[in-house]
Amino acid sequence: MEQDFLFPYERLDDLQLGGVKIIQNPSWFCFGTDAVLLADYASKSIKKNARVLDLCTGNGIIPLLLSQKSNANKIYGIEIQNKVAEMAKRSVFFNKLDSKIEIISGDLKDSEAIFGKRFFNNITCNPPYKENGGGLTNKSDSTTLARHEILCNLEDIIRVSSILLEPLGKLCMIHRPERLADILCLMRKYKIEPKRLRFVHPSSGKTATMILVEGAYCGRPKLFLDPPLYVYKDTNIYSDEINRIYGRKTEI
Amino acid sequence: MEQDFLFPYERLDDLQLGGVKIIQNPSWFCFGTDAVLLADYASKSIKKNARVLDLCTGNGIIPLLLSQKSNANKIYGIEIQNKVAEMAKRSVFFNKLDSKIEIISGDLKDSEAIFGKRFFNNITCNPPYKENGGGLTNKSDSTTLARHEILCNLEDIIRVSSILLEPLGKLCMIHRPERLADILCLMRKYKIEPKRLRFVHPSSGKTATMILVEGAYCGRPKLFLDPPLYVYKDTNIYSDEINRIYGRKTEI
Repeated sequence: MEQDFLFPYERLDDLQLGGVKIIQNPSWFCFGTDAVLLADYASKSIKKNARVLDLCTGNGIIPLLLSQKSNANKIYGIEIQNKVAEMAKRSVFFNKLDSKIEIISGDLKDSEAIFGKRFFNNITCNPPYKENGGGLTNKSDSTTLARHEILCNLEDIIRVSSILLEPLGKLCMIHRPERLADILCLMRKYKIEPKRLRFVHPSSGKTATMILVEGAYCGRPKLFLDPPLYVYKDTNIYSDEINRIYGRKTEI
Repeated sequence: MEQDFLFPYERLDDLQLGGVKIIQNPSWFCFGTDAVLLADYASKSIKKNARVLDLCTGNGIIPLLLSQKSNANKIYGIEIQNKVAEMAKRSVFFNKLDSKIEIISGDLKDSEAIFGKRFFNNITCNPPYKENGGGLTNKSDSTTLARHEILCNLEDIIRVSSILLEPLGKLCMIHRPERLADILCLMRKYKIEPKRLRFVHPSSGKTATMILVEGAYCGRPKLFLDPPLYVYKDTNIYSDEINRIYGRKTEI
């Protein structure tokens, strides 16, 4: 049964969340902690029956997690790499989540034509972190496209979100701290007011390595800073909050 | 001797740093931890023989600290409240620091006329934190003026700094996290690129209550995030770093 859904080199990973599994191809980009943290952070702002869009959805990890962590009516994911979008669609079918999730193979810059303006209550994005690598020799392999701003950049994501979000609709992203000024300034440029910000640190005392940020389209200026999130509380021991986010029981 | 410098209701506080003392009037605004943290953070970017300006200098605490924590050639402080600037000048004279520090009684918005363009290598500012309080009944008392954006606002400070700084000169500020987006976006608006950012937390795990931020005029975009600074390491026990910043020996 499972084999019917898998192509050669693919594997099926259990998300430990409502029995949902995800198809991944280890030679492409596989999801990491950042996707799990983003889904959890974004879920707090997703109201019942919301319409949600995940930009740069990749293998569909965010829609799959949000289908279990929210009461959204429908979660769309858009992915520009056709072969990756096709794999994400098979994950949706495998989990029989096709009434709740729809994966679209396309360019997020065409989203207005696909969905129309002001269609979404929430948008999420775990974007390529690295600025367009001028020195890259191979700009076409799947992992490079997922990591670098080659097919879309931060401004595309924020501009498109400002068109798709309803007033006070939320854009939630995870990114690197070094891009914080870019994110906050671009959000403001497109009338998405930064409202929530959380820094993710490997552990207490360590410099943050990721930021979670949420803005509201046409929101009122006032940034709320969350307490820091530590991944580890001791060497190789996850913090209680990370265990909660991953749905694991905390070791005592 | 000391009494010659003090007016009624004033007191003389030892800064525990090179024997420097400061005159303060307890019924006006007295300096706090934020000024000490700002001076320490800013000092790391002050090169030998630099020309430094402290905006909203108040009782002159930042210039006094920087005179001991840096090898600046000259540190200017500008303060709009004449009676407060006059007290700061007496502190400078009392410490015989008048060759190193000059306090100017004036409006920072007139700084270009006073100093000319591109005069400074470094600018510091511990500004009024609160946005112009429309509901305030008393907008003229000294403490209210020091806390609220009544006589100048964040944009004035950043705009003026962009005129006074030489290329790659640094503006270093301390502020509240809720104003982070305002600070980063205004810096970019006036070509002061945010380069260093540090969050100050009461203790590990607690939400940050202050931010230290430094930008470089005409700098290249790339934000460097510092490790978090904790004020306390345990209940009522200062962290080792706070003790170092205050010049205290760490209790073992």
